[in-house]
Amino acid sequence: MTVFDLPAVEALIKAALAEDVGSGDLTTQVTVDVERQARAEIRAKGDATVAGMPLIRRICDCAGGGIRVEELVRDGTKVRKGDVLARLSGSAHALLSVERLILNLLQQLSGVATLTARFVEAVRDTRCRIVDTRKTVPGLRALQKYAVRTGGGHNHRQGLSDGILIKNNHITAAGGIGPAVIAARAAAAHVYKIEVECRTMSEVDEALGAGADALLLDNMTPEQLAAAVKHINGRAITEASGGVNLDTVRRIAATGVDIISVGALTHSAPAVDLHMLLSLT
Amino acid sequence: MTVFDLPAVEALIKAALAEDVGSGDLTTQVTVDVERQARAEIRAKGDATVAGMPLIRRICDCAGGGIRVEELVRDGTKVRKGDVLARLSGSAHALLSVERLILNLLQQLSGVATLTARFVEAVRDTRCRIVDTRKTVPGLRALQKYAVRTGGGHNHRQGLSDGILIKNNHITAAGGIGPAVIAARAAAAHVYKIEVECRTMSEVDEALGAGADALLLDNMTPEQLAAAVKHINGRAITEASGGVNLDTVRRIAATGVDIISVGALTHSAPAVDLHMLLSLT
Amino acid sequence: MTVFDLPAVEALIKAALAEDVGSGDLTTQVTVDVERQARAEIRAKGDATVAGMPLIRRICDCAGGGIRVEELVRDGTKVRKGDVLARLSGSAHALLSVERLILNLLQQLSGVATLTARFVEAVRDTRCRIVDTRKTVPGLRALQKYAVRTGGGHNHRQGLSDGILIKNNHITAAGGIGPAVIAARAAAAHVYKIEVECRTMSEVDEALGAGADALLLDNMTPEQLAAAVKHINGRAITEASGGVNLDTVRRIAATGVDIISVGALTHSAPAVDLHMLLSLT
Amino acid sequence: MTVFDLPAVEALIKAALAEDVGSGDLTTQVTVDVERQARAEIRAKGDATVAGMPLIRRICDCAGGGIRVEELVRDGTKVRKGDVLARLSGSAHALLSVERLILNLLQQLSGVATLTARFVEAVRDTRCRIVDTRKTVPGLRALQKYAVRTGGGHNHRQGLSDGILIKNNHITAAGGIGPAVIAARAAAAHVYKIEVECRTMSEVDEALGAGADALLLDNMTPEQLAAAVKHINGRAITEASGGVNLDTVRRIAATGVDIISVGALTHSAPAVDLHMLLSLT
Amino acid sequence: MTVFDLPAVEALIKAALAEDVGSGDLTTQVTVDVERQARAEIRAKGDATVAGMPLIRRICDCAGGGIRVEELVRDGTKVRKGDVLARLSGSAHALLSVERLILNLLQQLSGVATLTARFVEAVRDTRCRIVDTRKTVPGLRALQKYAVRTGGGHNHRQGLSDGILIKNNHITAAGGIGPAVIAARAAAAHVYKIEVECRTMSEVDEALGAGADALLLDNMTPEQLAAAVKHINGRAITEASGGVNLDTVRRIAATGVDIISVGALTHSAPAVDLHMLLSLT
Amino acid sequence: MTVFDLPAVEALIKAALAEDVGSGDLTTQVTVDVERQARAEIRAKGDATVAGMPLIRRICDCAGGGIRVEELVRDGTKVRKGDVLARLSGSAHALLSVERLILNLLQQLSGVATLTARFVEAVRDTRCRIVDTRKTVPGLRALQKYAVRTGGGHNHRQGLSDGILIKNNHITAAGGIGPAVIAARAAAAHVYKIEVECRTMSEVDEALGAGADALLLDNMTPEQLAAAVKHINGRAITEASGGVNLDTVRRIAATGVDIISVGALTHSAPAVDLHMLLSLT
Repeated sequence: MTVFDLPAVEALIKAALAEDVGSGDLTTQVTVDVERQARAEIRAKGDATVAGMPLIRRICDCAGGGIRVEELVRDGTKVRKGDVLARLSGSAHALLSVERLILNLLQQLSGVATLTARFVEAVRDTRCRIVDTRKTVPGLRALQKYAVRTGGGHNHRQGLSDGILIKNNHITAAGGIGPAVIAARAAAAHVYKIEVECRTMSEVDEALGAGADALLLDNMTPEQLAAAVKHINGRAITEASGGVNLDTVRRIAATGVDIISVGALTHSAPAVDLHMLLSLT
Repeated sequence: MTVFDLPAVEALIKAALAEDVGSGDLTTQVTVDVERQARAEIRAKGDATVAGMPLIRRICDCAGGGIRVEELVRDGTKVRKGDVLARLSGSAHALLSVERLILNLLQQLSGVATLTARFVEAVRDTRCRIVDTRKTVPGLRALQKYAVRTGGGHNHRQGLSDGILIKNNHITAAGGIGPAVIAARAAAAHVYKIEVECRTMSEVDEALGAGADALLLDNMTPEQLAAAVKHINGRAITEASGGVNLDTVRRIAATGVDIISVGALTHSAPAVDLHMLLSLT
Repeated sequence: MTVFDLPAVEALIKAALAEDVGSGDLTTQVTVDVERQARAEIRAKGDATVAGMPLIRRICDCAGGGIRVEELVRDGTKVRKGDVLARLSGSAHALLSVERLILNLLQQLSGVATLTARFVEAVRDTRCRIVDTRKTVPGLRALQKYAVRTGGGHNHRQGLSDGILIKNNHITAAGGIGPAVIAARAAAAHVYKIEVECRTMSEVDEALGAGADALLLDNMTPEQLAAAVKHINGRAITEASGGVNLDTVRRIAATGVDIISVGALTHSAPAVDLHMLLSLT
Repeated sequence: MTVFDLPAVEALIKAALAEDVGSGDLTTQVTVDVERQARAEIRAKGDATVAGMPLIRRICDCAGGGIRVEELVRDGTKVRKGDVLARLSGSAHALLSVERLILNLLQQLSGVATLTARFVEAVRDTRCRIVDTRKTVPGLRALQKYAVRTGGGHNHRQGLSDGILIKNNHITAAGGIGPAVIAARAAAAHVYKIEVECRTMSEVDEALGAGADALLLDNMTPEQLAAAVKHINGRAITEASGGVNLDTVRRIAATGVDIISVGALTHSAPAVDLHMLLSLT
Repeated sequence: MTVFDLPAVEALIKAALAEDVGSGDLTTQVTVDVERQARAEIRAKGDATVAGMPLIRRICDCAGGGIRVEELVRDGTKVRKGDVLARLSGSAHALLSVERLILNLLQQLSGVATLTARFVEAVRDTRCRIVDTRKTVPGLRALQKYAVRTGGGHNHRQGLSDGILIKNNHITAAGGIGPAVIAARAAAAHVYKIEVECRTMSEVDEALGAGADALLLDNMTPEQLAAAVKHINGRAITEASGGVNLDTVRRIAATGVDIISVGALTHSAPAVDLHMLLSLT
Repeated sequence: MTVFDLPAVEALIKAALAEDVGSGDLTTQVTVDVERQARAEIRAKGDATVAGMPLIRRICDCAGGGIRVEELVRDGTKVRKGDVLARLSGSAHALLSVERLILNLLQQLSGVATLTARFVEAVRDTRCRIVDTRKTVPGLRALQKYAVRTGGGHNHRQGLSDGILIKNNHITAAGGIGPAVIAARAAAAHVYKIEVECRTMSEVDEALGAGADALLLDNMTPEQLAAAVKHINGRAITEASGGVNLDTVRRIAATGVDIISVGALTHSAPAVDLHMLLSLT
């Protein structure tokens, strides 16, 4: 069962069609013969790593009109300006109704994959993983995390129910790193490692002392990170976050951290530019 | 009935909580006493035009735990780094469960408002409107269009069922600008103006001749736009699109077009950085 | 994407099946062999303009049992008593489960189309359009408006988000016709005309003076309408409403108004009588 | 738990608000100050039996804006032209958003109650019950059946899962009245009586012989009905259907049948005319 | 329309897939090639009466991957340990995603059918029916009641809207058995028999005197039941409940009651043990 | 955000009310005055560990009628026959509508907690955890897992998206334990431990060699388990499953395994017997 078959993705497609099509496509109703058949091509208007191709067929299936879809590239393909991603054919009414939703979804997801690929490329030949965060666009979490994988990145946990990450606010509420980690050890399911956010070396020591499996080193400079990695010396997995961009990521990777998490992959990836061109059959 | 009361927004909040919280917040369950009460502040980590404040209360209402919300700024306020947007208090469990969704939604919407405000500022003292497009993030259309208004922009139509915009693909399917406009006049509800996409001066003439009320001048240079505006001479509303960014927008406005539509407002606005800080009560 | 493919219509079909079938069709379960195959014909029991034929297949698709549907007439056809609209074949259990919903929906929509066709016929050879209103049956808006088009009528706006119609209550809240129209001009998207409800000639003048594009002349006598049309003299589109029925509509059309809106098309159209007759295969 | 608290009714209200309000109330947004408070009265524009009053509060609760509702009449009240049904107060934006849905639902349901009351009045002082059918408007079944009760009528079964009514198509599929009734006796839950549709006296005898508890005498003339009632002589409950209208119903009741079912109560009741008038506070 | 085609069952399948699959099947994603095809067999690990086979195909249809399903037994079949119920083939990813939901649903429903069959066997050659109650697992009502029928039992009413059963709490609220039955006679639809809960012989007399059609004899000993049945002497249908288990049921049936209702059929049936075994193609 | 506030739980409550109440509570409608107020007590009819108390208020909130709820015990309390769990008061109609759903949900969840508590008690003073599985009742996963915690057990992962558990079918599809574990290490998020199902000592060695963090020792005898635990010697967490019941669990715990998983906790826990008794106010 792929991400595209999740009930939540089907619900998203229907909600998104509803918000765009509303009670019907007025312009098409009043200008195009309802029997008109057409072909359409989806093309890149710039370079990109494509993500979301299987959505095309699923969106078309919601729109009736018997649209046929021919996918010309697979997710993960790096396309160049002018490349054709897919060919569609069927009712012109149906094609015009789904055009914008197909483009909007593919533009967003390919934007995430493209940005991820750039981060991954930036740390090439290091042993460091680029991972995402929970800073995603509401409603698109599973699809965006798929796009991160498509671009060569790795996923952090998907959400609050599938991993233990003790952050600063938890530490405040729990009364300290030590109590938090010990409580987590006692109660958490055995399938999870326990990761703890640390901002200073003494917090690192406290977390290690309490038995943390992984440390989220937040907002440290590369120098601080390097020192921390050296100090931790393999006793825990290390994750760097904060101040990560395409200019800084390689230097951060060079500190020896295992993982760099990048919120921008999902909250600020610019959309890739795609368009659809119709022709008559 | 505000945008925040739409059934689709309630559905979005629930879907987004479901995707983040899943079957429950494991970390909080295992580290924080379920009776713990706390306060929290939402703060800006950079300058921004705020949009989405009324969502905080609605998200909290979905999470139980009796969270109280005090909004310190209204939508449209320009905040600076460090400003406090809202204070929350209630169950620490509930606060930690809603933290990320509140931040994710406000970050996205404030990002749209902030970018819009920059475009609006760039055309200040011209008579030109900045408007959005249908290039929105699937599921967030109504909220993003609200954020555009919050940033000082105007909305184009909301979707396919609430306006007549005859684009290039319609013209292809209809067999030309003339037939398309005439068919639209005959069939469209009387409450709509008829807008037509034009890429050349001869298309402009064909659209005007058929009785178009508004012309979408797509991908023209400022020089071409200026010539078109002069040629149209008030016979139709003029809208420019394509190649619009913060560097070019003022020059485009200077051509005399009535409206500039900017897809990037909603498809590529970088998220604003916000955070939530918990303290015990 | 036709009205029959809208997510809201799929939701309506499922909700309506749920309300009729409940936890299962008891009578059929206890009287008919589950393997029994059958044929069925849907017939008119009176004259009617048919609307909703494509719903048959969609309802059957929800019921399982592999029902095959043969549509014998298209929407808009004027049928006579005894005419067969469609032939169905498949599992007798499935056919008996969907019988009533198919008939109930087609009866309502054909009722709307039939009544609309009578109004349209009544104003034949005038230049006047018959349009619907927002006085629709909750949940059936898009389908009823489709049925109005099927009967030869035109649609007014679909709902509150796709047109500007300043009615009496807005005028009260805005502090007058002038302020309302001026505010609408300043803020409304450029794709909309601005229509204003007027009940007196001085209101007409105020609306025209403020730049209204269309005037809804409410509850005027034919004499008043004729005088208003003459006075307006093409400066705005004119719409008449109130007191419209099959006896008065032609006289109202003769006043020269562009549009007559008729709430009864959708709130009080009597159902057309249809039935389904089963036979064994 | 009243009909107004059913999950399906909450879903209907949200779907109906969504279809009317769409992405927001444009006219109100552009003409009315968002802080404006107002009062509103809902008034009858003709005589009617009111049904649906508790929906007002539930619709308002969906719209935000803190609308207060004062119900001045209870369901079942016979109002006259000009009577005030309810007073509302709160945000003008919210009031204008819910106006049409409140009126549309109350108009439909009061239409059903009003028509039912006329049928009930027509058979006054007979021992005959007026009951509804499954010929209801899709999505409104439970509400319409409530309106029938409000108008003084009785309900037949609600749907396919809550009663045994062996109709002509079941008899065809089962191979006759006898086999159908015997099969039903053997398999149906003991809480149900078994009702059978009969069109001739020999079918009546066959149904009685097989042990039917009730007989639906379909499309018989009053003479035939009287003869059938005499022949049945209390051995089964008798229900008449077909050809029932306000002109014929009393004569049918006079035949001595126990029950008369009237499809028109729910499929063709004309809407009652209501309106809402806003004033400033 | 079978129980498996009900909208509520489709909703249950999607909700259950969502709760199990969440945002995706992590283990399969990271261990199995996405192109891998496989076969799978579903086998019984003990003796059972099977119920729910048609769900397999419907669950697979929700999961994508083009799974083919071959059902080897029909519902109601008594299988033995090791018997193969179904063979599936298709994408290994899809098969692994649906495995648990298929097993969980079939295990529950076959558990109900198996337990029911044991009760039915225990009263073999008596004239007594085994029926279920409303003590079902929330969300599974219609499926569990189908499983009861599959195991040879009968259904009581499905829920509150499809039968009249006046229980002790109603009698308290109505002010006695007599008033309750009389009120029910006057107001209930004619398709229902009226059943009344009785705990003493004087309550039996009061119910019979008021015209009850059926009596629920609650928590009586076999001796009391036998006396009651003799006393009632065919004047009403008799149903025994309370204290029913596989050790007592035959003795209760021997009292001559018409019906024995058993809550445990649906609230406490142990799951049948099934498993799915994958092999490569 | 507790499990009771999850959107899926709200959806379950509404679906379960819909399946029980259908189009309305007929018996109550026809026997009880709609204005009648009442009190009700929920009592245990046997000993139990209570789980699900907060659902009472949430169910009542869905039913209207202003029911007040007083919870007398907290989840996890061990009650005895006759103990009162909660007192409710409000509209008799509303109380009678929610009675069965409240009892059905509490009976199921308390059944899970009660059975779990017995298993936990059986391994008291060992260092072994009792955990649940994914063998849950469809739709009740999160609530049942909560009930396991309430009874003193621990949770395994919630579903497929929140843990890595390489089972036999994955191993088949991946081509062996070694390749499966290595692939998982490379691709899985760093927050997860990797657990592998093993049935022989050589599989244990293969899994350890590939770096597994936890081993699911399936269907081993206590002797085999003891040998495996000794052999593993702390190199991985050990989990026993298969053949676990109240007679065997202590002996299995004595083998030194860290965890015993018990499917029966959620798939076959007998319902606890509760009832609700109404009295007039």
